[in-house]
Amino acid sequence: MANNLSLRAADNIRILSAAMVEKAQSGHPGGPMGGADFIHILYSEFLNYDPNDMHWPLRDRFFLDAGHMSAMLYAQQTLLGNYSLEDIINFRQWGSPTPGHPEVDVDRGIENTSGPLGLGHTFGIGSAIAERFLAQRFGEEVAHKTYIYISDGGVQEEISQGAGRIAGFLGLGNIVMFYDANDIQLSTEVSAVTSEDTAMKYEAWHWHVQTIVGNDHDALRAAIKSAIAETDRPSLIIGKTIMGKGVKKEDGSDYEGEVELHGKPLGQSKASFAKTIEGLGGDSSNPFQIFPDVAEYYRTVLDQKRSSAAARKVKYAAWEKANPVQAEKLATWLSGKLPEINWGEIAQKENDATRNASGNVLAYLAGRVENLIVASADLSNSDKTDSYLKKTTAFTKGDFSGSFLQAGVAELTMAALATGMSLHGGIVPVCATFFAFSDYMKPAIRVAALMEKQVIFVWTHDAFRVGEDGPTHQPVEQEAQLRLLEQLKNHSGKNSVLALRPADVHETTICWKLALENQHSPSGLILSRQNITDLPAASSRFAEATQAERGAYIVQNCAGTPDVILVANGSEVATLVAGAKKLSDEKGLKVRIVSAPSEGLFRNQTVDYQETVLPSNVPTFGLTAGLPVTMRGLVGTRGRVWGLSHFGYSAPFKVLDEKFGFTAENVFQQVVSLLG
Amino acid sequence: MANNLSLRAADNIRILSAAMVEKAQSGHPGGPMGGADFIHILYSEFLNYDPNDMHWPLRDRFFLDAGHMSAMLYAQQTLLGNYSLEDIINFRQWGSPTPGHPEVDVDRGIENTSGPLGLGHTFGIGSAIAERFLAQRFGEEVAHKTYIYISDGGVQEEISQGAGRIAGFLGLGNIVMFYDANDIQLSTEVSAVTSEDTAMKYEAWHWHVQTIVGNDHDALRAAIKSAIAETDRPSLIIGKTIMGKGVKKEDGSDYEGEVELHGKPLGQSKASFAKTIEGLGGDSSNPFQIFPDVAEYYRTVLDQKRSSAAARKVKYAAWEKANPVQAEKLATWLSGKLPEINWGEIAQKENDATRNASGNVLAYLAGRVENLIVASADLSNSDKTDSYLKKTTAFTKGDFSGSFLQAGVAELTMAALATGMSLHGGIVPVCATFFAFSDYMKPAIRVAALMEKQVIFVWTHDAFRVGEDGPTHQPVEQEAQLRLLEQLKNHSGKNSVLALRPADVHETTICWKLALENQHSPSGLILSRQNITDLPAASSRFAEATQAERGAYIVQNCAGTPDVILVANGSEVATLVAGAKKLSDEKGLKVRIVSAPSEGLFRNQTVDYQETVLPSNVPTFGLTAGLPVTMRGLVGTRGRVWGLSHFGYSAPFKVLDEKFGFTAENVFQQVVSLLG
Repeated sequence: MANNLSLRAADNIRILSAAMVEKAQSGHPGGPMGGADFIHILYSEFLNYDPNDMHWPLRDRFFLDAGHMSAMLYAQQTLLGNYSLEDIINFRQWGSPTPGHPEVDVDRGIENTSGPLGLGHTFGIGSAIAERFLAQRFGEEVAHKTYIYISDGGVQEEISQGAGRIAGFLGLGNIVMFYDANDIQLSTEVSAVTSEDTAMKYEAWHWHVQTIVGNDHDALRAAIKSAIAETDRPSLIIGKTIMGKGVKKEDGSDYEGEVELHGKPLGQSKASFAKTIEGLGGDSSNPFQIFPDVAEYYRTVLDQKRSSAAARKVKYAAWEKANPVQAEKLATWLSGKLPEINWGEIAQKENDATRNASGNVLAYLAGRVENLIVASADLSNSDKTDSYLKKTTAFTKGDFSGSFLQAGVAELTMAALATGMSLHGGIVPVCATFFAFSDYMKPAIRVAALMEKQVIFVWTHDAFRVGEDGPTHQPVEQEAQLRLLEQLKNHSGKNSVLALRPADVHETTICWKLALENQHSPSGLILSRQNITDLPAASSRFAEATQAERGAYIVQNCAGTPDVILVANGSEVATLVAGAKKLSDEKGLKVRIVSAPSEGLFRNQTVDYQETVLPSNVPTFGLTAGLPVTMRGLVGTRGRVWGLSHFGYSAPFKVLDEKFGFTAENVFQQVVSLLG
Repeated sequence: MANNLSLRAADNIRILSAAMVEKAQSGHPGGPMGGADFIHILYSEFLNYDPNDMHWPLRDRFFLDAGHMSAMLYAQQTLLGNYSLEDIINFRQWGSPTPGHPEVDVDRGIENTSGPLGLGHTFGIGSAIAERFLAQRFGEEVAHKTYIYISDGGVQEEISQGAGRIAGFLGLGNIVMFYDANDIQLSTEVSAVTSEDTAMKYEAWHWHVQTIVGNDHDALRAAIKSAIAETDRPSLIIGKTIMGKGVKKEDGSDYEGEVELHGKPLGQSKASFAKTIEGLGGDSSNPFQIFPDVAEYYRTVLDQKRSSAAARKVKYAAWEKANPVQAEKLATWLSGKLPEINWGEIAQKENDATRNASGNVLAYLAGRVENLIVASADLSNSDKTDSYLKKTTAFTKGDFSGSFLQAGVAELTMAALATGMSLHGGIVPVCATFFAFSDYMKPAIRVAALMEKQVIFVWTHDAFRVGEDGPTHQPVEQEAQLRLLEQLKNHSGKNSVLALRPADVHETTICWKLALENQHSPSGLILSRQNITDLPAASSRFAEATQAERGAYIVQNCAGTPDVILVANGSEVATLVAGAKKLSDEKGLKVRIVSAPSEGLFRNQTVDYQETVLPSNVPTFGLTAGLPVTMRGLVGTRGRVWGLSHFGYSAPFKVLDEKFGFTAENVFQQVVSLLG
C-alpha cells in the first residue's frame, strides 16, 4: 500500500475516533489518534481473518488491553465493515454496540472485554497458550498469530509481571505485542511515574524486543514482519507514538502529546476539534465519513482477507479429510461438547477432604476430557491438582504436549490466563489456589463473569479450618464475597458466577459436574482442607448427592413438619448432622437438614421447590464458617445464623472448632435457644 | 564475629526453626534453614534497634515478605530475647504469640503481618518512603535503614512489578532487600516456573543488584555493607541459598534443597529430624535450646545495640534541644495526635459531586495536616486528589519535600505502600482510585485491616452513574463486598474496616473527619462522580450532617409515627428525598428519610439509638445503586430494597437512572406497592 493512502486510512481512524468522543462528549481521543497507524497497518496488512466467518477458529486474534482506546478499535472495525457509521455515532449510548470500553463481541471483531488495565493483554497470552496447546495436538494447520495491544498503563499494572514472565518462560513465539508507548498517561506524563527500562525488563523475561517510531508506517511493517518471523520468543514492539497525533489548536498550530488529550473530548481541551478534523483531511461539520479512497482500499483488503481465508480453508479441509479422527476431535472441542462422563464411577474415599475428592475427579477427567488445561499458582500439592499433574506434564518452552500450567505465585495472572484460554475456544480451563487468595483474582473473575466465559476455579483451604496457617490464610468473608457475584446477573440474565461449596466427597463430584457443564460463566469450587464425615444416606450417598444440582436439597428429613430446619454448606453440614442427632436424641425434636452448595442455583429453582426445601414457616438455623451474612439469604427471617464474625487465629483446626463454636454441642444449644 | 561462632548461631536458628515445625507438626522448615545465615548476620551485625525500647521510631525496620518463614524470624527474635523458648515451643498454637504466619507485634520485633506473598516487601517500600518523607523534613538525624526479606514466591507475585518500579523510580537508597533465592518453591523447583533474569529486571528498575552465595557469612557481610553504602538506589542482594540447609537423612547423608522440605515437618519427609538436629550440633531429644556460646554472644550483641541506641539518643536529644519546634512537630506526628481542624470551615460548593467535596477537604487539609501523604493510581484529576497535588509536589528521586505519590497504574501496590507508611508511623496515608478498582486492592486492604492500621482509601466513581465508561468501570457488588470487612471484626473486636458513603458534600466533610480520626483500621470513602443535590436541612446542613458520625441518622422526619421509612446512602438519599415529596404530596404519607453512610458504625450505636432511627415496626424501603443485599441489613425484615441486580451498561448516567429505576417516580411506585 502506498504510504500516502496508508496515512489517509490512519487519519480516517483518527478522525472517526475524535468524532466519536466529541459526539458522546466523553471518552478518550488522544490514545486512538496515536495508535491509529499501528491498528490500520496490522488489520489491513497482517491480521488474518474471514470477514464472512468472524468466528473462524483459525483466525488471528487481536486483544486490546487498553480498553479506553475503544474508539480506535471501533473506527478500525468500521473501516472493515463490522460497525456502521450509525453504530459509532452512538458511541457510549444506551443500546449501542459501542460501549465506552469494548465488550467481547466476536461477530464485530471484539475478542475481549477490557477496561481494567492489564487484564486484556493477559487474556491474549492465555489465548496464545490455548493456540499452542491445540497446535501441538493438531499440527501447525491450526496455528495462528495472537496480536496484543498494550499501553503505558497496562505495562504498569502489576499483572504484567506475571504475564511477561510466563509468556517468556513458555517461549510463546506466536505472540506479537504492540506497546503503544506515547509517554502520556491519564493524569501525568509517564516520566512522572516511572523510569523503568521496559525493553530491558521484557528482555529479562526473554522476549524479543524492538523499539520503533510507532507512527512510522514502514517501521511498523518491518517490526511486525520481524516479530512474526521470531517464533521462539514472544515479541514486543515498543512503538514510540504521539498521543493525540494530528490535534491542532484554533490557530492551526499543533497540540499533540498533551496530558489533557487522554481522557476528554477535544472541544473540552485547549485543542480545536474543527481544526483537528480539517487538518486530518476531514469535514468537521460531518466527520463521520469514510474517505472514498480509503473505503475503496478497504474493499480490496476485505477481498484479500476473504480469498486468503478461503485458500486456507481449502487446505484445512484437505487436512480434515486426511485426519478425520483428529478433525472430529478438534471440532468437538471447539463446539464445547463434552464427552460422556459417568460421574458415579469416580471413586471417592469415605470421609475424605473435599480437596482430595476434587483431586480424584481431576485424576478421572485426565485423558477423558482431553482439552482440560489445569493450572495451579504453586500449590498443586496442596490444592490437589497434583493428582492431575501426575497424569500429564507441565508446559515448558516449546512443549505443550501436557496439559498443566505451572503458573507460579501469580494468582491474578493465572485467572486471566485461564480466561484467555476460554476466550480462544476449544479449551476447558481450570485454575487452583487457596480460597483466601481468591482476593488477588477478583478483577479477572469479574471480567470473566461479564464476558460469560467458562473458567473453573478450584479454591481449597476454604475456612478457618486451614488451622495453623492463621488468619492471613483463613477465609472468612470470601464466600460471601464470591456469592455477591452469584447474585449479580450478567447481560444474559444469569448468575454471573456459580459458587459451589460441597458438603462431602460425593457432593464434590456433583459440583464438579455442574462446573464442567456450566459453559457460560465462571464457576468456583470451594473445598475443604480437612477431612469431612460423609453425609448420611438412605441408599447410595452419591445418588442422593445428585440433588445438589438444584443448589440446595434435603439431606436428612423427619416425619411430618420439622420442628426446625438446619441449613449449611461445606463441612458445616456434617456438624449439623452431629448436632441434629443430639437434638433428636435429647430433645425429641423433628429435625430436617439441608445442604446448600449454591444459593444462586437454588434461587433459580421453582418457588415450589424452594418452599418445599426451606418452608417459610419453619424455624431455621444456619451454620457457616464464613460471616453470618453468608447464610442469611437462606435462613432469611425464619431464624438464626451461627457464623464467624471475626478474623481467625493460628491453631489446630479442632481447637478452633471448639473455640469458635463449630461443634455439635453448640448447634444443639443454639437451636434449643432459637426454639426458646 | 568469628565465623565458627557465627555459623553456630545460624545453626541454632536452623535447629529452633526445624524444631518448631516438628513440634507443631505443621509449618515450613526448609526456608528458615536456608535464610538463617542472612537473618543472623543482619540482626547481630547490622540492624539498629533498642532492645529496651522496641517502638523507638528511629529503629531500623525489618519487613518479612515470606510469612511462611515465620519460624526463622521467631528463632532470631528468641536469640534476641523477644520470645521465650516456651513461646516458640507453642508455635502455631492457640493463644501463643507465634502464629503460623507472623502478625505485627512491634514489642517482639515483628514489624508486619505477612503470608499472602508480595505484600510484605511492598509494606517495606512504603515504610521506606515514610522514612524519606520524615528525613527530608527533620534531617538525617531521623533517618534509618529498611531491610526487607523476600523469597522466590514474593518475587513472582505481580505486586513486585509495582514495588520494584516505584522504589527504583524514587531512588530509595535506604532500602536493602535480601532475595532468598533458594530455587525451590512450594510445589516445584523454581526452574519449572520461571526463567527470568531477576537481576536484570531489577536493574531495569534502577536497583543496585548484587548476587552472592547467600549462606556465606563473609559474602553476606560484604554485600550488606555495599548495599548500605549505596544511598542513591535501592539495593537488592540476591542470595543464592540452600533450602533446608543442614537437613540430613537417617543414614546421615545430606538431604538439602528438596521441594518437600518447603512445607512440612522434617519427620514427615524423607529426612531425619534427629539426624538433622544432631548434625547441626543440637540435642534432638531437647532441641529447644540456645547454645551457651551463642547465648553469650547475643548478650554482647544486645549490649552493643543498647549502647549504640543510647548514643544515638544522646545525639537526638541534642538535636531536639537545638530544634524544639521541629522536635515537637515530629513527636506529635509520631504520637498520632491530629491538629485541631475546624471541619465546619471547609467550604463546599452546593449540590456538588462528593468526589469534588472530598477534593475540597483535601485542599483544606493540605498544609494543616502536614504529615498527610496522598497517592493516586494515575487518576488524580478524576479522583480529585489533584486538589491536594496542586498545593504540593509529587515525590521524585531524592526529593520528598512534597507529599504526593504518583503511584502510576498499580492499585494493589499503592494500597500496600500506603499500609507500609502507616506501619512506619508518623504518617497519615491516603490513596485514591476508582471504586471498581478497589477489587485490585483487596489483598492489601484485608491485611491492613488485620493489622489495624490507618489507611484512608478514597474511592470515587462509586456506582453505575459512572455512566458512559460502562460495566467494567461501574461498581455494583463492591460496596457490599467492602461492607463484609465492616462486618468482620479485627482482633480488637472492632469493625476491621470503616466504609463510608456520604450522601452529599456536607456528609463528605464529616466522613473525612471520621476517616482521619479512625487510627485503628482502614477507612474507605465511597464517592460519587456526578453532582448530588444537597439534602434538606432545617438549619445548617453541615450541622445536621454531623449526625453522620453515628453511622445512620434521620435526615428528614415527619410528625408522629412514620407510615414508611426510606433509607439509603450516597447519592440515592437525594433520590429518596425527591420520592418522599411525591409520596407526601400525592398520597399524604408520613415519610421519614434516613441516611446511612456506614452500617458498621450504626450497629456500634446503642440499641436504643438504632431503634429510634429505624424502628422495627415501621415498613422500610431501601434504595441502593449496589446489589440489593447492600441495604438488606438496614431494611431487615421490615420492607423492600430496590437495588441493582445486574452489571451496568455504557450510557449517560441520567439515562441509566431511568432505565434502572433510580428515580423519584420509581421510589414512589415501589413504596406505594410496599404499603400495598
